[in-house]
Parts: sequence; C-alpha cells; structure tokens
Amino acid sequence: MLIFVLNAGSSSLKYQLINAQTSELKASGVVERIGIDGILKHVVSKNKKLTIEAFIPSHKEAIELILETLTHDETKTINSIDEIQAIGHRVAHGGEFFKGSTIVNEKVIKKIEELIPLAPLHNPANILGMKICMDLMPNIPNVAVFDTAFHQTMPEVHFLFPVPHEDYTEHHLRKYGFHGTSHSYVSNEAIKLLNNKKNSRIIVCHLGNGSSICAIKDGKSINTSMGLTPLGGLMMGTRSGDIDAGVIPYLMDRKNMDTHQIIDYLNKKSGILGVSGISSDLREIISAANEGDQRASVTIDMMCNRVRKYVCAYAGLLGGVDAICFTAGIGENSTLIREKVCFNLEFMGIELDDEKNQLKSSGNIEINKKSSKTKIFVIPTNEELVIAKDTYNLVK
Amino acid sequence: MLIFVLNAGSSSLKYQLINAQTSELKASGVVERIGIDGILKHVVSKNKKLTIEAFIPSHKEAIELILETLTHDETKTINSIDEIQAIGHRVAHGGEFFKGSTIVNEKVIKKIEELIPLAPLHNPANILGMKICMDLMPNIPNVAVFDTAFHQTMPEVHFLFPVPHEDYTEHHLRKYGFHGTSHSYVSNEAIKLLNNKKNSRIIVCHLGNGSSICAIKDGKSINTSMGLTPLGGLMMGTRSGDIDAGVIPYLMDRKNMDTHQIIDYLNKKSGILGVSGISSDLREIISAANEGDQRASVTIDMMCNRVRKYVCAYAGLLGGVDAICFTAGIGENSTLIREKVCFNLEFMGIELDDEKNQLKSSGNIEINKKSSKTKIFVIPTNEELVIAKDTYNLVK
Repeated sequence: MLIFVLNAGSSSLKYQLINAQTSELKASGVVERIGIDGILKHVVSKNKKLTIEAFIPSHKEAIELILETLTHDETKTINSIDEIQAIGHRVAHGGEFFKGSTIVNEKVIKKIEELIPLAPLHNPANILGMKICMDLMPNIPNVAVFDTAFHQTMPEVHFLFPVPHEDYTEHHLRKYGFHGTSHSYVSNEAIKLLNNKKNSRIIVCHLGNGSSICAIKDGKSINTSMGLTPLGGLMMGTRSGDIDAGVIPYLMDRKNMDTHQIIDYLNKKSGILGVSGISSDLREIISAANEGDQRASVTIDMMCNRVRKYVCAYAGLLGGVDAICFTAGIGENSTLIREKVCFNLEFMGIELDDEKNQLKSSGNIEINKKSSKTKIFVIPTNEELVIAKDTYNLVK
Repeated sequence: MLIFVLNAGSSSLKYQLINAQTSELKASGVVERIGIDGILKHVVSKNKKLTIEAFIPSHKEAIELILETLTHDETKTINSIDEIQAIGHRVAHGGEFFKGSTIVNEKVIKKIEELIPLAPLHNPANILGMKICMDLMPNIPNVAVFDTAFHQTMPEVHFLFPVPHEDYTEHHLRKYGFHGTSHSYVSNEAIKLLNNKKNSRIIVCHLGNGSSICAIKDGKSINTSMGLTPLGGLMMGTRSGDIDAGVIPYLMDRKNMDTHQIIDYLNKKSGILGVSGISSDLREIISAANEGDQRASVTIDMMCNRVRKYVCAYAGLLGGVDAICFTAGIGENSTLIREKVCFNLEFMGIELDDEKNQLKSSGNIEINKKSSKTKIFVIPTNEELVIAKDTYNLVK
C-alpha cells in the first residue's frame, strides 16, 4: 500500500512516498522557504532528481506542487495521484490525549488544535497540512502520528515537574518528550539486534539538529530528555536544552526580554550556535576546533558532556544498559561525538571499539568491543517508515 | 584561637564559637524571626542551654543580644567579648572574583555589594552582618568565607551555560555552585578515609533543606549541581531544582507571573512542598508515604531519582568513583533516601550494605559492602569549622 508521509513545518514541508508493506521508499522530497520564495527538491533515485524553484505563496500551493511533481513526466514516481492510498502526518504534540496514532477526523483536528499552547510553532503547521490534504484528496484517509505518543508510557515519577501539583492537573504541565517515532523505530531495531532479549534496557541517543535521549525498558519509553516542549534536555544546534531555572528570569531582567523573546532566544540563538559564536552546524564547529579555535572545542565538549550525563543517568535508571544506540544526523555520522560520549565509561561496562567506530555503513552496525557488556549500535533512524507503517495498520 | 562564626540570613542569624586550633565547639546558637518577633536559642552543652524570647527589631540588636548571651551569667561561654579573636562570615556569593576566603575590608565589602544581583537575598544580609560586627567590635578582624569559592576550579566546559557567549562575558552568567565549604570539608574527610589516595574521585551529596551534589577530582570541584543561583540542580524542600526551560515562560504566561514572582514560585512553593502538597520537610513526606499517601511516595521517588541522576552522571564524568559521601540533614539521617539513591547501581560498582546503612553515628561511617568498588560514606558536615579554620589561617 502506497503511503504519502507528510511532515509540515511552519515554512517547509518534508515528504516521502513509501510502500508500507515492502518498506520501499518510492520518492522523497522537501519544499522550503514557503511564503518567502520557494524551492522544491524531489528525489526518486540517485539519477532521478528534480528541483523546482518558484514562488510558493502558501502550504496549499506547496502540496499541490508536490502532487504534480509525483506524476511529473521527468520523474514519473507514480502514474496518478490515485495510487496514494493513505496519508500519514507527523504531528508534534499529542498531549496526554493521544497515546498512539489515529485516523484524522474533525474531532481529532479539534483536539490537536486544543494542544496548540503546548506546541505553538508545530501543531498549527501540522493541522494546516492535514486540512489541505483532506481538501485536495477528499477520498483518501489521513492518519496522525504523534511525536509524543511513544513517551506516554513514562511513569509519573519521571513525567512530573518539581513544581506545585496543580500545574499538572490544571495546566497540563508535565514532561511529554518528542522524537517518539525515532526512539520507537531505533529501539525496535536494537531489540532485534539483541535477539529479542526479554527485559531489554536500551538508551537511544537521537542526535541531530534537534536532539533527545530516551531510556527504554522492554520496548517502552520510561524517561526522555525533552520536556514540556522540545527545548529541554540536550544542547542542540540553536537550542539551549537544560538550563538552570535561575538563568531565565536573570536574563529576562538583564536583557529586558519578555516570555516570547526568551523562548525565541533559548530556541534559536543558544546551544551550539550561541556558545561557539560560529554556526549551529556541528560539522563546522569540528572543523573550527581542528584549526585550533578554543571556543569551538569547548562547544563540542559541552555538547558531548550533556549527552554523557544523560547516558550515565539513564544507565543508572535502568540498573545497567544492554544497548546504547546512536541515530540521526550527528549520531549516525560523527565518529568524534560517539567517541567522546563513550569515553572513560569502561567502569560501567561500556567499551567502544575505536576501529569499528570509524566504519561507514548505511545500515545498522555494532561498534563496541567484544568484551563490552553494553552493545553500542549505530542505527539510521527512519521516522517516515514508522509513520507509513502506523498509517497502513490503521487504514488497511 | 577563638573564632566567632556568623551566618547571617535575611531574618535569622546562626552562630558558633569555635577554637580553630583544637576544633572545639564552645557554643552555638540561632536567632530567628528578626523584625517579626524574635527568639534566641543558645547552646553551650546538653545541660547548658538558654532561650530568650524578645522583640528583636533588627540584625544589630540580634548580634548585640548574641554577644551579651556569650558572657551571660547563666551560660558563661566566655568571660569577656575580648576573648573572641576573629570573626568568620559565611558569604553566599563571591562570583568569579573570590577564589578563596579573604580578610574583610571596605574594598571587599564593595565587591560583595557588586555581586548582589547574583545573590539578591543572601549577599545583603551577609554584608549587614559584617558591617555590624565591624561596628560593635572594631578591633577584631573579620574574614569572608564564600559558598562559591570551592567551585572556582570548575573548568569552562562545566561552568558555561548553553547560551550566547556574551551572556558570560557581559552579564557574568555562568554556573557558580554553592555549599562550597560543605563540599570542601566532606571531600577532605573522604580523602583521609581513602588513606590520602592520589587522583581521588569523590561525589558529595549534600542533602538538606537546600541540596547540591559535587564531583571532586583530586580534591578539586570539577562540577556541581547548583548553578547561577541556588535554585539549580536537585529537587529541594521548596526549590524546584533543574526544570525544563520551556516550563518557565509557559508558567509565567499561564499564571500571569513576572520574573520576580516566578523566582519566588520556584524557590518557595515548588520542590518537595509543591509536588507533595504536604510539607517541605522530607520526614513528614516519608511518614505520609508510609501511611499510604501515593503522592508522597511519588515525591520521595522524584527527589531520589534526581540525586541518582547526578550521582551516575558525575560517576561518568569522573570515569568511575572512589567514594560517594552523604551529608547534611537528609544525607546524614535518612537511611531510606540513601538506600533509594544507591539502589540497583551494582553494575557500576556501587554496593550499599543494607545493615551498615541502618547504623547511627555522630562521626564518619562507611556503609558499603566489602565487595563494593566504590566506598559509600556518611560524613556529618561541618561548614562552621571550615569557616573557623579559614579565618584562623588568615588572621594568625
């Protein structure tokens, strides 16, 4: 069954066309700079690509352009839009209401709308994507797959914040966690690599431009580093991650910022970009460090230390760990970061094999020493495949 | 040499009279509710105590009353105020300027005044204490001992926050850490118990109404849980400790709070009190949990999980740990909390002996199993003794 997977952001759209039964990726693409100018990049295979530059005023025109491109003579990804049998939407925030994926209807959209205060940037774009699809392809079912749903198994002791309890009961203030589809996919792959070990204890390090860590016990998320919003936890490209609560009012007073401005500051100007003063792209920071930039070196160490902190804390939470998995852009590709994260953890049974860590692979690989009690895996994430499979399972 | 140690708070004064050479405690006491009504409790020994209830309008009258009490006929702690040879003041925040204790003069007071924005509640009270002592006992030297100084050995990678670098260079925004005299004292005791092991790796858990953890490498603080202010890190009696940054603007918007109010909220209404809805006193929460109160149980587990998180993270940072030390009110007295913190950490060489954990002692005790790679100590803290000794060393 052919599933169109859509990840709608505020000024961009990512999509894939996947055969959910065979896991075959038919095409993928992205539309960027919607409302600014506009560019669509469509990839069917290495030799079959298409780039369209045109003014794309809104998400509606963007999705229309994608659908046209799918049947474009140049690429001929599919013959007709009718070949798409369902649409799977990535949705940022499902609150406590959505504990799994669901078929989209008016009620579901209304509920996702109610959750906008928890994800003011993402949920509106996700809703827009759904509404446009329902409008353009009225006979095709839509499924919402939530970034938060996988973490709904977290126990109270891990999802409550250390503030008055009424904030949870009255204001829905709790840890939700994100990157759920990625943590779910990668931990499932790891469990297979562990020969379906019972009572498995897994830590997934999803390190990309946005990053989070998840402690997974027997396939279920029990704790994760992101919180109420995707600002919590690890230091990211432009996001601070965890920061002393005292810092926020201090900065607001010093720099005369309101709540809107401080959110923006901590989301867009902090993290790797803010500390290094160079870039949000870790590859550029690593280059700068190699050329002797001291602040770039500190930035890398700060980022890695925060990952280590969570790895060790979650290992403790799980009472020991069977597998640590690295995934997403940085996790899959940066040997340096994996090396720094695993450094000096032999005392808790974590032994990285330096040679295996250098291996390049498009598939899952094991990079620990033979003597290591804990397996260390690199597992390329595939959130779209999870979305396609969830969609298939709900509409088949 | 007889040292008068003073810890001046906003509405209270704690004091001790210590012979710095023999470490003998001559007397201790506290004045509370200054400016409200007023009570002084003076203790020389088990059988020699004095309580005075009187309206105490200000810190000046409070210190005058303490000095009178020291020579009071009832207690006869000393014959004359002239026997006091120096005064040691606990000062909350020394910023980056004070890397150790110092003799107080006008310049030092001015510098501590400049640091008020970093400790708006504590530094003004500390300055007041110094000024009154200089006024009442003009010929006796005063020494300032800073809560932050011990942590000035932290490397940049641990003291920088993940925000734009200018916030550090222009606004002094960094992690300072607190409870320095306690972490210093307890880690020194632990090093002695480790037979002065070289390259020692120690974790001190100072768990009281205010709590912090410190990673200490070869006697030097390399990381600690409190940050810019004493709000960061562990969940405390009424303080939240670490909290997702996204929570703060969310709560401010929801509850219409300004920066002043949110600081107050996170400092005074959160933590154990906020989550339990019962009390800030852990003993009451443990009683409630024993009687079946579900939320009290969750509160205890939240608090302990946060301690565990840091213990494991700092063990990783140190590449293994020679000794974990428990100190301060909760750390010294709660077998339950120590048990929960150490639970299930055998995989990293931490093995608590359940029987030894039940032992009561007024001195240092070892409570790990013989087979444990990591020693676990209970070490009663003695911040006043550190202050007295520092004072003695500077004025002798």
